[in-house]
Amino acid sequence: MIIDCHGHYTTAPKELEAFRKKQIDGLSEASASRAKPRLDITDDQIRESLEGAQLKLQRERGSDVTIFSPRAAGMGHHIGDGTTSLHWTQACNDLIHRCVRLYPKNFVGVCQLPQTPGVPPTNCIDELERCVKELGFVGCNLNPDPSGGYWKDPPLTDKWWYPFYEKMVELDVPAMIHVSMSCNPNFHTTGGHYINGDTTAFMQLITADLFKDFPTLRLIIPHGGGAVPYHWGRYRGIAQDLKKPPLTEHLLRNVFFDTCVYHQPGIDLLLKVIPVDNILFASEMVGAVRGVDPATGHYYDDTKRYVDAASLGDADRRKVFEGNARRVYTRMKLST
Amino acid sequence: MIIDCHGHYTTAPKELEAFRKKQIDGLSEASASRAKPRLDITDDQIRESLEGAQLKLQRERGSDVTIFSPRAAGMGHHIGDGTTSLHWTQACNDLIHRCVRLYPKNFVGVCQLPQTPGVPPTNCIDELERCVKELGFVGCNLNPDPSGGYWKDPPLTDKWWYPFYEKMVELDVPAMIHVSMSCNPNFHTTGGHYINGDTTAFMQLITADLFKDFPTLRLIIPHGGGAVPYHWGRYRGIAQDLKKPPLTEHLLRNVFFDTCVYHQPGIDLLLKVIPVDNILFASEMVGAVRGVDPATGHYYDDTKRYVDAASLGDADRRKVFEGNARRVYTRMKLST
Repeated sequence: MIIDCHGHYTTAPKELEAFRKKQIDGLSEASASRAKPRLDITDDQIRESLEGAQLKLQRERGSDVTIFSPRAAGMGHHIGDGTTSLHWTQACNDLIHRCVRLYPKNFVGVCQLPQTPGVPPTNCIDELERCVKELGFVGCNLNPDPSGGYWKDPPLTDKWWYPFYEKMVELDVPAMIHVSMSCNPNFHTTGGHYINGDTTAFMQLITADLFKDFPTLRLIIPHGGGAVPYHWGRYRGIAQDLKKPPLTEHLLRNVFFDTCVYHQPGIDLLLKVIPVDNILFASEMVGAVRGVDPATGHYYDDTKRYVDAASLGDADRRKVFEGNARRVYTRMKLST
Repeated sequence: MIIDCHGHYTTAPKELEAFRKKQIDGLSEASASRAKPRLDITDDQIRESLEGAQLKLQRERGSDVTIFSPRAAGMGHHIGDGTTSLHWTQACNDLIHRCVRLYPKNFVGVCQLPQTPGVPPTNCIDELERCVKELGFVGCNLNPDPSGGYWKDPPLTDKWWYPFYEKMVELDVPAMIHVSMSCNPNFHTTGGHYINGDTTAFMQLITADLFKDFPTLRLIIPHGGGAVPYHWGRYRGIAQDLKKPPLTEHLLRNVFFDTCVYHQPGIDLLLKVIPVDNILFASEMVGAVRGVDPATGHYYDDTKRYVDAASLGDADRRKVFEGNARRVYTRMKLST
């Protein structure tokens, strides 16, 4: 079985954007009086949005199931306030739940969180609990920068985040550390902010001892870990200068990287320097890069081809494609 | 000859920090009345600061000359105002000039700029001109984020920067795009902010057409290009989705990467995916990582070993070690 641990619902019916527009248009009203807009999307619309995209690509590329969450750039935690974020998040998560119910063999749900800049993430606990206990979701996407490119909240290792981590541990669900849209003109969203978010998060984890406090907390750094595997010597060296244990002990019991790296040499490096137990297959389709690589004739984000072509034993390849995802997303119950 | 294109004066005598402290202590005074503090450092102090560090390491590792600039983290453009930045920058650049005069075979000067957040970089033109014409410097370090981790100034492709680029072109000097200290607690300076700065700058260049306006402008992205070579497929794909020419045409006539990547697999990837004409040897010693890699028994930042061990023909290796640096830093006149 091949599990793609990183897919967003980037093809949702346009009614979802209309919902969001209504929210944004209503931001001049007082928070308490703002009603949650209605979202009318039929099952057929959902089917249509998935059949020609994620489901078609699963079949064509040979993956079986996608760990599926709302569009990351769309989370937009910087827009409005806590009420805005909660309404939007509930709508997005409910829609993911409907995708999973319509295609229970193809999708497993992961939730967005109702984060808001400057608001402690304790306000995300209820929605995480609802998604895990009522909707059967297996994890969440945690945004390390709800300000959207200005990085105003405390680092992930700050006590600010601890109550949320406690709930994650209690529910036994991991988080993918994933920023959302950049509203800072310096950062292109998918080419700058996403990759910086990954690199930043990992470096934050190096400087502290978060996993001494949360030995079972599990975090996935997407997009192949940002710059980290390419600079693995730098990060090992910085950790050493900071008198931290080797990264394998310090972080790699708790931190995992996905395979959203869109060329063979990148995947080869990832598999060479990061222990195989820490790598989860993913493509992020339909996502940041939509085109076909003229050098190969295949989609840039058809990452299964790179993993297939990598120098890797069968048992290790099975870990990357399936075993590691099952181990990290422990609530995911898939029949083989 | 082996030219290390990226070295900072990280070992300057402690009098330099005392100068800086006086500046910072005096920030409560009105800008116009602030005098430039005195900096008393003897030639012997300079010799002593270099002999046991950069010069010793050049000899031990087998490099010949370092393109040398003030400490990058120390630039601290966010501190004080334009006067603060100008006084500090002049002092730092004058000190580099003294290093070069004391050891003309070992060092070539590159200057810091008196940038200040929110102030157009036209205010840096005079200091660039002074350093190039009077001190014989061959390039500059340009900080894409003078705010120190809050990214408040416009992207490098904005017209904001154009008058400065015009002067660079006129003087025929390149810039290394290098951030300074992070004062944002989210970003570790050398492990987060530096690498993010590199990735961010390259992605900014993808989205615009800067080199149509400045066909001879030359920029070096340090630290192996941040995350870029590892995600080369992603960047090629994003450029393609944006209807830009292939990156080789779009950027690689003007953009160069250094080899500050501190392990063999990273250097191997860099040399595999980036054309050899775009790679300049560098180590950043004495810099971000000071330790010895227990896996190899050698210093992490002894990057010459990685380039020596890479699968590379002799002619290509000479380009990386020498030819490309001479081509990019055209004002550098070194006897072979």
